[in-house]
Amino acid sequence: MSIRYISQKLAQQIDEELMSTAGAFSLDQLMELAGLSCAQALAKSYPVQSHKRVMVACGPGNQGGDGLVAARHLHHFSYQPTIYLPKPGSKDIYKRLLKQCENLDIKVISDVDGFKTGLRESDVILDAIFGFSFEPPLRAPFDQVLKAITATSLPIVSVDIPSGWSVTKGSQPLYTKPDDGGEPEKIETFTPDVLVSLTAPKEGVREFKGRHWLGGRFVPDALAKEFELNIPPYEGVDQVVELPQA
Amino acid sequence: MSIRYISQKLAQQIDEELMSTAGAFSLDQLMELAGLSCAQALAKSYPVQSHKRVMVACGPGNQGGDGLVAARHLHHFSYQPTIYLPKPGSKDIYKRLLKQCENLDIKVISDVDGFKTGLRESDVILDAIFGFSFEPPLRAPFDQVLKAITATSLPIVSVDIPSGWSVTKGSQPLYTKPDDGGEPEKIETFTPDVLVSLTAPKEGVREFKGRHWLGGRFVPDALAKEFELNIPPYEGVDQVVELPQA
Repeated sequence: MSIRYISQKLAQQIDEELMSTAGAFSLDQLMELAGLSCAQALAKSYPVQSHKRVMVACGPGNQGGDGLVAARHLHHFSYQPTIYLPKPGSKDIYKRLLKQCENLDIKVISDVDGFKTGLRESDVILDAIFGFSFEPPLRAPFDQVLKAITATSLPIVSVDIPSGWSVTKGSQPLYTKPDDGGEPEKIETFTPDVLVSLTAPKEGVREFKGRHWLGGRFVPDALAKEFELNIPPYEGVDQVVELPQA
Repeated sequence: MSIRYISQKLAQQIDEELMSTAGAFSLDQLMELAGLSCAQALAKSYPVQSHKRVMVACGPGNQGGDGLVAARHLHHFSYQPTIYLPKPGSKDIYKRLLKQCENLDIKVISDVDGFKTGLRESDVILDAIFGFSFEPPLRAPFDQVLKAITATSLPIVSVDIPSGWSVTKGSQPLYTKPDDGGEPEKIETFTPDVLVSLTAPKEGVREFKGRHWLGGRFVPDALAKEFELNIPPYEGVDQVVELPQA
C-alpha cells in the first residue's frame, strides 16, 4: 500500500482532530514535534559540516511557527540559522517561539532587502512560508521573497508544500495582488530540492521528484487507519522517514 | 571542564527561568522534549528487539508527565508500553497526556496489584515516579511500588533521580509515613541500571555507576553558561548524550 496524498480539507481535518478534546494534543506539542522533524530532515539532507548557515524563511501562520521551532533545533544541532520573519503571527505562541530563538542570539530579519543579503550568506534555505492553508493570489512582501528564493542557486528544503504551489494541483501559474491595486504580476514558482511533508504528503506534491521526508511521528494508529494514510514505518528513534522518490 | 551536578534549588530555578516570560517556554514544550529524551535514552539502552515490553511507572507530578510523554514516544518507537499511574496529576496537561496515550490503546494500570502483575510481563522499567522535588517520607501507595521495583530483577531506567533517593545525598535510609499513623517502615531503595538526567544531573546521583544519559537539548547557551552547567556536546540530531561513567 503506497502512502496517501491528502487534500487540503483532510489535512485541516486531521489537525483539528489531533487538537480536539478527543485528540488532546496542544498546538505547542504538535508544533514542537513538527519543527523538530523539519530540523532533522534538513540535517539528514544537508550536513552541518557543509551547510552550516541556514536561512529559515517563516510565514505568518502555523507554517512559520514550525520554522521557528526548526530554527531553534537547528541551532542546538550546531547550525547557524538566520530567521526571516516579515509578518510575525499574532498568536501568543509565535511570540514565545520567536523569543526562544532570540534567547539563543539567532539573527532575525524582517525586511526583504535584509533577506536578499542574508541569502548571499547562507548555505541552504528552509522554506516555512506557506503551508497547506495557502490560497493565491500572492501579496507583498511574499512576491519579492518568492522571487528572491527562485533566483538563488541555494538548495531549498520546503516544509509541507513548496511556498507558492497549489496544495491541490502543485506548481501552477501564480499571480500577485499588488497592494496599490495595480496589474497582477505572474510569478515563477521554485521547485525545492528537498521536501518535508508533515503528517501526510499533500495532493499538490504528488509529482515532486526530489528527496522527500515524512515527519510528524505522532499520528495515532487509529487516525492513520481511519484516513488510510498508509504511513511507512519510521526507523529507530527518528522523527522523519524518507519516502521513495516519485 | 566536567559536567556540573546541580542542587534541588538550582534545578527548580532553571525550570522557572525556562518557563518565565523571559525564557518563554511552555510546560507542554519542555515536557514533550524531556519525555522524548527519556524514550530515546531507553531505546538506546534497551533495544526494542529484546526489551519490547516497558512498564512506565508514573508519579503524580511533572516527573509522571515526562513518563506519559515517554510512553507515547515508546509506542511510536514500536515498544509496547504499559503505564502505571496510581495518582493522576490534577493539572489539565496530565489529563491531556494521559488521553493521548489512551488514544494509542496503551494499557493504563492504577492499582498496586495490577502493577506487580504487570512487572512480571515486562522487560524493562521506566521509573518516572519521583523527580527533583521529592521529599521523604514515603507515602502509600509508593512504598509498595518502590518495594515491588526493588524486588524485581528487571533492568530499570530512572528519570532524573532514582525514585526514593535524596536529590541532594543520593541513596539514603528511607522511611514510610503510614496513612493510619502506624510505625514508619524502613524501605530499601533500588539502584537503577540506567539514568536519564534532564537539563543537568542532580547532586544526589554523583556516585551513580550505571549508564548515564543527559537529556533536554533545549537549554539556552546563555543559561548553561550562567550556571556553569558544562553540558557536553550532543551528537547529530540526538536528544540525549551519554555521560562518562563515574
